[in-house]
Amino acid sequence: MKALVYHGPGRKAWEDVPDATVRDDTDAVVRVETVTICGTDLHILKGDTPEVPEGRILGHEAVGTVVSVGAGVKTVKEGDRVLVSCVSACGHCRFCREGRFGQCLGGGAWILGYMIDGTQAEYVRTPFADNSLYKVPPGVTDEEILMLADILPTSYEVGVLNGRVQPGDTVAIVGAGPIGLSAILCARMFSPGHVVAIDLADARLEAAKAFGADLTVNNGTTDAVEFVREITEGLGADVAIEAVGVPATFELCTQLVRPGGHVANIGVHGKPVTLHLESLWIKDITITTGLVDTYSTPTLLKAVASRQIEADRFVTHRFALGEIMHAYDVFADAAETGAIKVVMSR
Amino acid sequence: MKALVYHGPGRKAWEDVPDATVRDDTDAVVRVETVTICGTDLHILKGDTPEVPEGRILGHEAVGTVVSVGAGVKTVKEGDRVLVSCVSACGHCRFCREGRFGQCLGGGAWILGYMIDGTQAEYVRTPFADNSLYKVPPGVTDEEILMLADILPTSYEVGVLNGRVQPGDTVAIVGAGPIGLSAILCARMFSPGHVVAIDLADARLEAAKAFGADLTVNNGTTDAVEFVREITEGLGADVAIEAVGVPATFELCTQLVRPGGHVANIGVHGKPVTLHLESLWIKDITITTGLVDTYSTPTLLKAVASRQIEADRFVTHRFALGEIMHAYDVFADAAETGAIKVVMSR
Amino acid sequence: MKALVYHGPGRKAWEDVPDATVRDDTDAVVRVETVTICGTDLHILKGDTPEVPEGRILGHEAVGTVVSVGAGVKTVKEGDRVLVSCVSACGHCRFCREGRFGQCLGGGAWILGYMIDGTQAEYVRTPFADNSLYKVPPGVTDEEILMLADILPTSYEVGVLNGRVQPGDTVAIVGAGPIGLSAILCARMFSPGHVVAIDLADARLEAAKAFGADLTVNNGTTDAVEFVREITEGLGADVAIEAVGVPATFELCTQLVRPGGHVANIGVHGKPVTLHLESLWIKDITITTGLVDTYSTPTLLKAVASRQIEADRFVTHRFALGEIMHAYDVFADAAETGAIKVVMSR
Amino acid sequence: MKALVYHGPGRKAWEDVPDATVRDDTDAVVRVETVTICGTDLHILKGDTPEVPEGRILGHEAVGTVVSVGAGVKTVKEGDRVLVSCVSACGHCRFCREGRFGQCLGGGAWILGYMIDGTQAEYVRTPFADNSLYKVPPGVTDEEILMLADILPTSYEVGVLNGRVQPGDTVAIVGAGPIGLSAILCARMFSPGHVVAIDLADARLEAAKAFGADLTVNNGTTDAVEFVREITEGLGADVAIEAVGVPATFELCTQLVRPGGHVANIGVHGKPVTLHLESLWIKDITITTGLVDTYSTPTLLKAVASRQIEADRFVTHRFALGEIMHAYDVFADAAETGAIKVVMSR
Repeated sequence: MKALVYHGPGRKAWEDVPDATVRDDTDAVVRVETVTICGTDLHILKGDTPEVPEGRILGHEAVGTVVSVGAGVKTVKEGDRVLVSCVSACGHCRFCREGRFGQCLGGGAWILGYMIDGTQAEYVRTPFADNSLYKVPPGVTDEEILMLADILPTSYEVGVLNGRVQPGDTVAIVGAGPIGLSAILCARMFSPGHVVAIDLADARLEAAKAFGADLTVNNGTTDAVEFVREITEGLGADVAIEAVGVPATFELCTQLVRPGGHVANIGVHGKPVTLHLESLWIKDITITTGLVDTYSTPTLLKAVASRQIEADRFVTHRFALGEIMHAYDVFADAAETGAIKVVMSR
Repeated sequence: MKALVYHGPGRKAWEDVPDATVRDDTDAVVRVETVTICGTDLHILKGDTPEVPEGRILGHEAVGTVVSVGAGVKTVKEGDRVLVSCVSACGHCRFCREGRFGQCLGGGAWILGYMIDGTQAEYVRTPFADNSLYKVPPGVTDEEILMLADILPTSYEVGVLNGRVQPGDTVAIVGAGPIGLSAILCARMFSPGHVVAIDLADARLEAAKAFGADLTVNNGTTDAVEFVREITEGLGADVAIEAVGVPATFELCTQLVRPGGHVANIGVHGKPVTLHLESLWIKDITITTGLVDTYSTPTLLKAVASRQIEADRFVTHRFALGEIMHAYDVFADAAETGAIKVVMSR
Repeated sequence: MKALVYHGPGRKAWEDVPDATVRDDTDAVVRVETVTICGTDLHILKGDTPEVPEGRILGHEAVGTVVSVGAGVKTVKEGDRVLVSCVSACGHCRFCREGRFGQCLGGGAWILGYMIDGTQAEYVRTPFADNSLYKVPPGVTDEEILMLADILPTSYEVGVLNGRVQPGDTVAIVGAGPIGLSAILCARMFSPGHVVAIDLADARLEAAKAFGADLTVNNGTTDAVEFVREITEGLGADVAIEAVGVPATFELCTQLVRPGGHVANIGVHGKPVTLHLESLWIKDITITTGLVDTYSTPTLLKAVASRQIEADRFVTHRFALGEIMHAYDVFADAAETGAIKVVMSR
Repeated sequence: MKALVYHGPGRKAWEDVPDATVRDDTDAVVRVETVTICGTDLHILKGDTPEVPEGRILGHEAVGTVVSVGAGVKTVKEGDRVLVSCVSACGHCRFCREGRFGQCLGGGAWILGYMIDGTQAEYVRTPFADNSLYKVPPGVTDEEILMLADILPTSYEVGVLNGRVQPGDTVAIVGAGPIGLSAILCARMFSPGHVVAIDLADARLEAAKAFGADLTVNNGTTDAVEFVREITEGLGADVAIEAVGVPATFELCTQLVRPGGHVANIGVHGKPVTLHLESLWIKDITITTGLVDTYSTPTLLKAVASRQIEADRFVTHRFALGEIMHAYDVFADAAETGAIKVVMSR
């Protein structure tokens, strides 16, 4: 079969590899029909994650059809149309028992396209199929479902739910890339008073408006902290969501938040940040971090099916599966191409 | 001044009474500019609440202007435009300290138009003004604000929050009178998958659709339990909200709810109900009751101001303050007139 | 092997039956070393549960050693000392994904000694072994662990956690049989101000004191509602736990609870109860029901191991496994024998 | 009257000052009968809080008798024995309405001995008396009650409740000074599996054992992170409580905590800390900060009265009120004197 293979920092190829097969009795093999690229894939390609060996097939998001299952698989069968989630779950360990699948101790968590071969291929082996695949209901498109593989549950769980967004809240979202836009969409589900998108690029702020931000701030030219204070009687945002992953944006979030408010970090950080406890110790703030657990996937499936979330908003570019090398270029050059999510389909 | 005075079961008059004045140093007197009638006022008039003495001025909802304040009032002053809430709060007792103002032990809770003279008058004395009046922000109309006096916080706190409505949920609302319609509007704030309105009157079900129910069931002709099971894979509603106040509708709610779900009672009941613990003991259900606390009033003010809630939807009939006797007739005959909320203004 | 077999209402025998064997690849077979009898077993024997067929082996609580496992079992192996929990969990269904194992839709929940053969035998087949058996840590006795099979998690989850017991609370526990005593022990984990045990039998109230109730009320001779009001400034109990299962005790709980308090039902009810909504609708109360989910079993294991819970307090009578017929007599005649939990061991 | 007056960094005197009197109608004046010294008083004396002017009377903790009240005070009267809490609450602002009194916007929060004259005096003026004084129940001593002025609610709310300590948990408490010891006592209310005290001084670790830590680590000689991992199957502490206020101890807490765990900061910090988001972003941790709100004071009063908390454990040294200058020396030299809390009484 064909697959997108990582060959060390900066090198990848769409090439022939051995077919995906069932190895453990809880595996399924899925024929990939729709697949996308995540910002994390770009990080791996840059060499930021040296634990990923050369030869790894990338990708952790897909929609497809089950073609074979191990003897122990109970809930999906050949022919089922399924979502392949970025998180696999053993279903038995202490963290899986509490729905914290992203911290699975039994061999699951985020493994696809990272610890094992992933979804950017014609077929993919998916471990722990009973807890890691989701049957797709009729009436929703592959593209809508595909957004449930990673971007929607990540921004919903790690941003909106960890941040405890409530009706009437002022929610400041720092970073209007794909994950920030998804956080805007998901925050809207709780009817906040204001969603303020903050970014350095006006084009991304335009996208933020389309996704549901009622206010936008270019913090290259405007003082975002001052802006948010003005609309909150001097107090600050109820919730500040970090969707970039660098020290400056995290520190901005801790300045944006009101006493008693929440800072929810979604960004993937490569460096330590400074936490100004000399002013924050007295402010009753809560800071959360997290990897997606996907416990919300069934909920979000219902929300997408009932159009509470317009999941198809994300897809800006469409390609055939064999054009994935080009799709990577378009996605990597988002500033120029305006790409949010690129989709490859059979 | 003029006021609507209760003269025993079935008798009331719009008549001259002594002017409202400040008695305690935490009182304010408010010039009533917009006022409405609640279903509870009809109950009092029927004589269902023998604790209400003849001579009482009715009404517990108003918007107006402060005309005088006691020496101890700190946060409102003459000339302020304010919402008069149905719940007064002493601010000191154990329940007020935890935001459970509806259970105030210090002389507050629901007292206006019940234990003391109320708002259906040209002026009203409001005790504990600092914790019971809310300054009105610019840009919202009196009619919108007026809905925050009772109907919106009641359905939001006692129905939607007690019922723990979550995104993707199937919410069954039994009763599509004013409070049920308000519950529909407020449930929508949490992006449920389905809001199912259940009532015996098709006209009310039409109103339910206009307020945001995507599904309606006339349970005179259709089996509501069966209907809800069919759309929930046989499980039942995540949340069932009782908005009528009779045994049959409460028992219906306990049949509608899924294992692990919530029954939130809003209805005012005059009789005991049967609770089928022989089948419910094993079902992990949660049943809640409650009087509104109005802790959510500031949140809802923001939601109304940002148009997350379209509060003006409720007002079907408008009158001059002096026409209140006629307005009562229109409101009492809702089946014929289609009245949801009637508003009297200066 | 030998087993305790139900032969229709009022009839049982300790007799030879075919050996327990692995049938599904997620099964384990456990050699039973310590086993007990539950009040539910007595109900089945009386014929209260007609869904239980003649020929069923009873019992849903045991500690023993794994002797064989199916091919799909990952987390326990031959020779492991394990707790057999009353609840089995498929680990895949929507309820298992949220830790609500007692409502498992995939073939689990309470099935042992009820829908399939149980633990009162020399060996028992345990389905879904990975999610239903718990490895026993060193340093705790079989008898301590055995109490984690049902009685402790049931009273902890359905009584104490559902009832939201908090430090300083006044907790009223109605019924001082085994499950009520266990609720006392578990309520104490949250440092309540008072635990008030209420029962008709002085002997059981004595036991309640030994388990940690600081106050007891014989409600045959004393007005329990009055008693609780006197110690709570007239308000009532913060939490009322029903541990009997008849209408009178449930209704008592709804009278005992303060405004804003919780009624947690643990009792297994055979008849409907009357819920006095005409007085409760305004009182902000929360009523919960539930079957144990056993999500707390790992927590309670730690609490038993660290002696936060003295789990060995329950065992009043000890027998050899072959004496189980006699043990049933002793347990059934608790009023006379003072039995709380009887234990049979190899 | 006599009072302890701050005269600039390093200078204080017990000297004559004008009598405390009622100024606002919500004030009370309390005759101070028992008073203590807080670590924060030492900070002020060092000059760490330049906002405190010379001439300020220090102290924010006392027990005494009301001697006069303003016209607007409703709930306490002359002759009442009361706790003077470190936090005053206006009772009207948005934060007071939600029980977040420590963030009061109406002139309250922590003001005594800081923004206004405090309790280390023969008499003290207490603003917002209705929401800031607590009547003392019979049967508890002044010394027990005094610990409710600051140290107990601070460690309970900001440490134990913010940290979400649960039964069975492993709780690591870094710093075994007065606030850390209090956190140990309060954590015990939730029946954790282990309370691990971590400090550099063996004498403080001995005190930690007496207060209820079952394990202690001198992190000058033992690797605390390694120690905690060994007792938690390699995962880390469920809750890490910071009770020192320097960067090293905060960073230690973020290393001690397990995936999904809580870091609760109580320490007063003067410098920024480094937050290692490059490893923590994926770990699902929650970090909280906070000033005490005293919403738990009524709960803790019950817990002290029922001896769930042995509040008198803290008092190591007792003095007459006029000996306060000497008492300061003893308290400041805790390493030598072993002082935990020093108490001055009339």
